[in-house]
Amino acid sequence: MNIYTRAQIMTSLCPGDAAALIAQGFIAQAEGRVQLPPIQSLQFPASNGDCCVKSAWMSGDEVFSVRVSAGFYDNPAKGFSSNDGLTLIFSALTGQPVALLRDGGWLTSMRTALAGQIVARAMAPSQVSGIGVVGTGEQARMQLEQLMPVTACRRLTVYGRNRQRLKQYCEFAEALGFDVAATQNAKDVATHSNLIITATPSREAIIANEWVNPGTHITAIGADSPGKQELDAHLVARADVIVVDSIEQCCQFGEISGALKSGLIDKGRLLVLGSVLSGRAIGRRDDTQITVADLTGLGVQDAQIAKCAMASLAH
Amino acid sequence: MNIYTRAQIMTSLCPGDAAALIAQGFIAQAEGRVQLPPIQSLQFPASNGDCCVKSAWMSGDEVFSVRVSAGFYDNPAKGFSSNDGLTLIFSALTGQPVALLRDGGWLTSMRTALAGQIVARAMAPSQVSGIGVVGTGEQARMQLEQLMPVTACRRLTVYGRNRQRLKQYCEFAEALGFDVAATQNAKDVATHSNLIITATPSREAIIANEWVNPGTHITAIGADSPGKQELDAHLVARADVIVVDSIEQCCQFGEISGALKSGLIDKGRLLVLGSVLSGRAIGRRDDTQITVADLTGLGVQDAQIAKCAMASLAH
Repeated sequence: MNIYTRAQIMTSLCPGDAAALIAQGFIAQAEGRVQLPPIQSLQFPASNGDCCVKSAWMSGDEVFSVRVSAGFYDNPAKGFSSNDGLTLIFSALTGQPVALLRDGGWLTSMRTALAGQIVARAMAPSQVSGIGVVGTGEQARMQLEQLMPVTACRRLTVYGRNRQRLKQYCEFAEALGFDVAATQNAKDVATHSNLIITATPSREAIIANEWVNPGTHITAIGADSPGKQELDAHLVARADVIVVDSIEQCCQFGEISGALKSGLIDKGRLLVLGSVLSGRAIGRRDDTQITVADLTGLGVQDAQIAKCAMASLAH
Repeated sequence: MNIYTRAQIMTSLCPGDAAALIAQGFIAQAEGRVQLPPIQSLQFPASNGDCCVKSAWMSGDEVFSVRVSAGFYDNPAKGFSSNDGLTLIFSALTGQPVALLRDGGWLTSMRTALAGQIVARAMAPSQVSGIGVVGTGEQARMQLEQLMPVTACRRLTVYGRNRQRLKQYCEFAEALGFDVAATQNAKDVATHSNLIITATPSREAIIANEWVNPGTHITAIGADSPGKQELDAHLVARADVIVVDSIEQCCQFGEISGALKSGLIDKGRLLVLGSVLSGRAIGRRDDTQITVADLTGLGVQDAQIAKCAMASLAH
């Protein structure tokens, strides 16, 4: 069994290959070709921590994976990162362990950013006139990096509540070559952008329905557990197309669940990302439509990015 | 994170300490102090393999564990063992990985053998006149080894179908100091023993009801998945005391499920091992009772033996 460090994984992973494998994973999942047992979850209330275990195997693959992700939110005060994660990879032919990827959580962040890229490639309007980012954290940065191969647009409006972090985000985006407008009014993001990413841990809507122009695509990344929300439920309801990574998860939490519960939308309106990617469902039909994608995160993404990392590392 | 090999683990684990921790685990589980998410299971039909993932945390412990066990039954033809297994141990204070135990499945075999010891200590008659073992495989050997601290009895009757393996088992048991009678008639085991262990993958009853003498204790180890059976359902029904490691699992499979389904016993008769160990329930009341224990294997055993191994290794 080979053991790889975060640094080895970060320097060898090819984002393009990983995105292609993750897209295949979304399609395989939509077609029922992935074994994904229910996620195991452990809670550590005294340490303000939680842990989840995700196992996955795509039929026919030579490997399967078991991913353990931990979030311990008092860690920064102890000098550690809040998030940690590792993936064990096993042979699907003999059951023997093949590799341990000690990425420390980076692969989860990266597969989430690449899912944003995949959705943008499938759903963004043909002409992106402005990119909008809501949030200034690590995921908001990685989302912007991974949008760069999708569009030539380098006009960015970024919203953040914390002035210092907003300034730091601007410096980061300018270094990537973006022409950046920073704002503490989320309306500016909606007004000036037709490709918007929300990546915050917000528990109330940040983007109001009436701010959003026709022809906009919005990918909501943040609401990955119950109680979180970034988009006005009426905006979700107004969207011409609603795409989700998992109907099951998006009915439990995320942007969609609120709109469903309040009766604003019907479950039948939800399209699965994998079906849009395979062409079984049609996503955006024209440049006047408003499209919304809600990503809650799937085990198959973890499995696919781990496979990609291992292939690069073993090379 | 420290990584330990099978050889390191086997040479450092103290069976007595491990048995004490596993007994504590059974008690904690019975008292609802263990987080045990549902077991994840993956199936690999083309490779004749399966894999299961068991996570566990006992409230208050400084570590939690994730165990991955694989069984790939065509492996011997490829030069590998059928069974493999490893345990990841994490800090329950920070979520960080602490150790990887690459025991290759030995810890599962050992915790199963130690559960047999724990049950025998709690349930065997006060005078063991003869030990009976049904089966000649690795687990049948480990069960015998772990019975030695429980009783001074060195009279053994062993049953096996395969003559060659039976002979090898006799040599093994004689080397341990046992006076061994080998038989290919399972009735001999029941006739000559009042402490019986069954450890086979049988799919039909091996021990008939009418063979068993009053005052006998039987621990059934083998039936760890649906369709397996070692004891006559009428023997289970006749037992004065029926002890199980998990009511839930034993109702799904194992010796108990058959007797339940055919209406021979009532679920209310089942005692949980942890409750017997803590004294909340009374196991054997006198030396005339027939007692039966059905062990199907719990994640908390994996967690406790891993904790014990890690403590010895880190010493």
